[in-house]
Amino acid sequence: MVKGCIFCKIAKGKMPCYKVYEDKKIIAFLDINPAVKGHTIVIPKKHYNDVFDCKDKLLEKIIKVIQKISINYKEKLGCTGVNILNASGKSAEQSVFHLHFHILPRFDDDGYKLTTQTGYVKEDLEKLAEKLKIEDRIEKK
Amino acid sequence: MVKGCIFCKIAKGKMPCYKVYEDKKIIAFLDINPAVKGHTIVIPKKHYNDVFDCKDKLLEKIIKVIQKISINYKEKLGCTGVNILNASGKSAEQSVFHLHFHILPRFDDDGYKLTTQTGYVKEDLEKLAEKLKIEDRIEKK
Repeated sequence: MVKGCIFCKIAKGKMPCYKVYEDKKIIAFLDINPAVKGHTIVIPKKHYNDVFDCKDKLLEKIIKVIQKISINYKEKLGCTGVNILNASGKSAEQSVFHLHFHILPRFDDDGYKLTTQTGYVKEDLEKLAEKLKIEDRIEKK
Repeated sequence: MVKGCIFCKIAKGKMPCYKVYEDKKIIAFLDINPAVKGHTIVIPKKHYNDVFDCKDKLLEKIIKVIQKISINYKEKLGCTGVNILNASGKSAEQSVFHLHFHILPRFDDDGYKLTTQTGYVKEDLEKLAEKLKIEDRIEKK
C-alpha cells in the first residue's frame, strides 16, 4: 500500500467506492466523476504505477475482468459499445498513479467523442518501423 | 478471414504494413494515419469483431504484447508514457471492425489531448453500482 494513494485506499476498503466487481487481486468501481454513464475504473489491488511496471500475469487477469464487465454492461446497461482506456505516465494524462483502466460504456448517438484529435505530421514510417521492431516474441517465454 | 476486412488482409500478408511485432497469433504495425509519433495498432490475426467476442485467452496474449511494445517504445522512441485504447462497437467510435488496440506513445508536453470531454450528468451511483454488480469472479473459472 502506497501512502496517499487513493486507489490503494479503495483496494484496502479504507475508502468507500461504488463497487461493481471484486476478486482476490482486482477491484472495479464506478468513476465518481463519470465521463459517460457507467464509467468504470478497473484496478489491481496491489500497487503498480502503470502498464510499464505491472506483472504481466496480473495484466492478463485485468483484461479478462475488463471483458467480463464489458459484456455485462451490454446486457445490464444496454450499451452498444465500450471504450477501454489506459493512461500510463503523466505525459499520457494519467492522474492517479496507481495502474487503472477505464471502461466507458457507449450508446448509439451518445454525443460523446473520445478521439477528437489527429493530424500528427507524418514521418518516414518505414524507417520508424525498422527502429521500433521487436524480434523477440511473447511465445518464447 | 473476413472478406473486405483490411486487418485480415494485413494479418495474412495480403496488404503491406509497417510491422513492429509479429508472432503466431498477433501482429502489430504503425498506424498509417498516426495521431502521435509511433501510433501503433495491435491485432489478433484471427478475426474477432471486438472485445465482446474475442476469446479471453487471446486477449491475455494481446495485453502482454501491448505491454512489451510499450516498454520497448519507452526505450527506443523515448516516450515517457503511453495511452492504450480500444473501441469496441460503432457507438464507441470503432472504425475497422476487426478487434484492435491502439498504443499512443506520449511525450512530455506533446500537446496532444486524448481525454477532452467530461461532464456526464451524474445519476445515483449507488443504485447504478447495485444494478451493474457482478457476483461471479474470474477466479472461479
